[in-house]
Amino acid sequence: MATVKSADDLILTAASLVGEALTRTEETFENELSTGGPYVADIITHTRRFRGKRLRPLLCLLTAKALGNLNRNHEILAAVVEMIHTATLVHDDVLDEAEVRRHVATVNVRWNNETSVLYGDYLFTHAFHLAASTGSAEACRLIGHATNRVCEGELMQVRNRGNLEITEQDYFTIIDGKTAELCAVSCLIGAKFAGASESINASLERFGRSLGMAFQIADDILDLTASQQLTGKTLGTDLGQKKLTLPLIRCLNSVSPAERDQLVAWIHAGTSESTTKVLDLVVSSGAMSSATETAQQFTADARRELKSLPPSPAKTVLEKLPAMSIARQC
Amino acid sequence: MATVKSADDLILTAASLVGEALTRTEETFENELSTGGPYVADIITHTRRFRGKRLRPLLCLLTAKALGNLNRNHEILAAVVEMIHTATLVHDDVLDEAEVRRHVATVNVRWNNETSVLYGDYLFTHAFHLAASTGSAEACRLIGHATNRVCEGELMQVRNRGNLEITEQDYFTIIDGKTAELCAVSCLIGAKFAGASESINASLERFGRSLGMAFQIADDILDLTASQQLTGKTLGTDLGQKKLTLPLIRCLNSVSPAERDQLVAWIHAGTSESTTKVLDLVVSSGAMSSATETAQQFTADARRELKSLPPSPAKTVLEKLPAMSIARQC
Repeated sequence: MATVKSADDLILTAASLVGEALTRTEETFENELSTGGPYVADIITHTRRFRGKRLRPLLCLLTAKALGNLNRNHEILAAVVEMIHTATLVHDDVLDEAEVRRHVATVNVRWNNETSVLYGDYLFTHAFHLAASTGSAEACRLIGHATNRVCEGELMQVRNRGNLEITEQDYFTIIDGKTAELCAVSCLIGAKFAGASESINASLERFGRSLGMAFQIADDILDLTASQQLTGKTLGTDLGQKKLTLPLIRCLNSVSPAERDQLVAWIHAGTSESTTKVLDLVVSSGAMSSATETAQQFTADARRELKSLPPSPAKTVLEKLPAMSIARQC
Repeated sequence: MATVKSADDLILTAASLVGEALTRTEETFENELSTGGPYVADIITHTRRFRGKRLRPLLCLLTAKALGNLNRNHEILAAVVEMIHTATLVHDDVLDEAEVRRHVATVNVRWNNETSVLYGDYLFTHAFHLAASTGSAEACRLIGHATNRVCEGELMQVRNRGNLEITEQDYFTIIDGKTAELCAVSCLIGAKFAGASESINASLERFGRSLGMAFQIADDILDLTASQQLTGKTLGTDLGQKKLTLPLIRCLNSVSPAERDQLVAWIHAGTSESTTKVLDLVVSSGAMSSATETAQQFTADARRELKSLPPSPAKTVLEKLPAMSIARQC
């Protein structure tokens, strides 16, 4: 548990560096949603318990802080990216038929799928309404573009469910959209609204993107290996839904034709015994450790993008975040 | 069919008055969506067949035209309101488990619910991305606020499903959000971006709102009475889902206690015989004609808001639109 402890410590350090701004980000988030009346108030209260480590708001605020110009627009847009992330979680839980998120019943279980779909829409549209309150159409455009790519990634993933021929490149395109894009835009906004140069903007966007890629690969590994109890959400859903992720794609492409046929049969069988066999082969084939290595490469890519930032406590935290993002899910 | 014919004629007249702008609105709509790659291209092609009479874009463009200043921002924002409307239709079809829309299989039937949820999100986020292309944060704020209210109306509706005690006031609040708001903002945008005064902006917003209220009441009456073949979508879904609308709410509140108990039992039974009995009582109690009268009152309210506009062909069409909206669904 040493890793988990240090991940928590890092998040606490990050939060304390941007403490007041983070508090105002939280208030902005709550105020924006509170206008919806009694029919959403109880759902908002319930889903407050889903919220995690605020990785995306922290990326935005820390980036701005590291550039020496953290301002009101960052607080608003940090709340916006968190709201969009929450919207995608609510809709993901419908799609995955998940029952638990962060040890709490999902909206679809606590209420129903209809409410989940509409509450996700409510969050999306409030995120855009809040983005407009910056008075910057450019902020709205950036948020709009990022969410377009998130949806494309998710659509590509759903439409490849059951496709056992999916390539690594397709997998990377999917996670680049569904996960890395929102981390990338969080950092880009942090830099842009701090008045950084185009070159610094681009570096920090790439930093966020590589961090997001690493994070999603680690999340997919965790889905295959960890227990429901530990992470507080329904696990093993990817394999059950025939949603192939990096370890399994690598395994399918590295084993012998006979083993591949066997693996495909186990995937189709979908029993707990066959799932264990799949997992054993993914590990023994080396595909699992190879996927972990790829995640580590993305964290190294991320760190390299920070070189041009001047030394500061915020930079030090940013340097440590990629490794943390693969050690513990946020 | 005389009414239907004249409704089609009116839409044709409206479209010809703003012909080039409407064509560019369509192109803007298509171009915005076409960036999504192969995994959405086939869904976009399919849902193109859902599209109706473009009531909301026409409201925006005609309003601007009637004020003598129809410009590029109107074309963009007319495409935005149509895209948001399409997003709500796609998500509504998931919620209603509808199988047909405009004689075409819904996205949830042709693909699956997951794809519907994500494609609806894709449309929402592209609508906001497109709104930002006006360079006006105020446009983004107006669109954001209107979609917030649409979602609130829909959430209130879903959470009142099965509530046989629902009041007329609750019903009006629901349809004001889920339907009237988008018609209202279409007209408001038409006026605001034509440079009209605050007073004209407010009048035209009220015009759109009253038209939308009339339209939704008529749609709810149609859901109870018409056949699937005529309207091209799955009907009688409201009653089947215990979603009470104006005629039924009025009927429940106007019949004797014994008849009310009987009515409640028929609603719970949910068979085709009990549905016929419900419909007979709604008609014989006078609740159906009373609901129709209310729709007509809203059309009169709408027309009154146009008084201050100078005479023009666009004004003449706007004056006729409310009555058309209750004669034929768009």
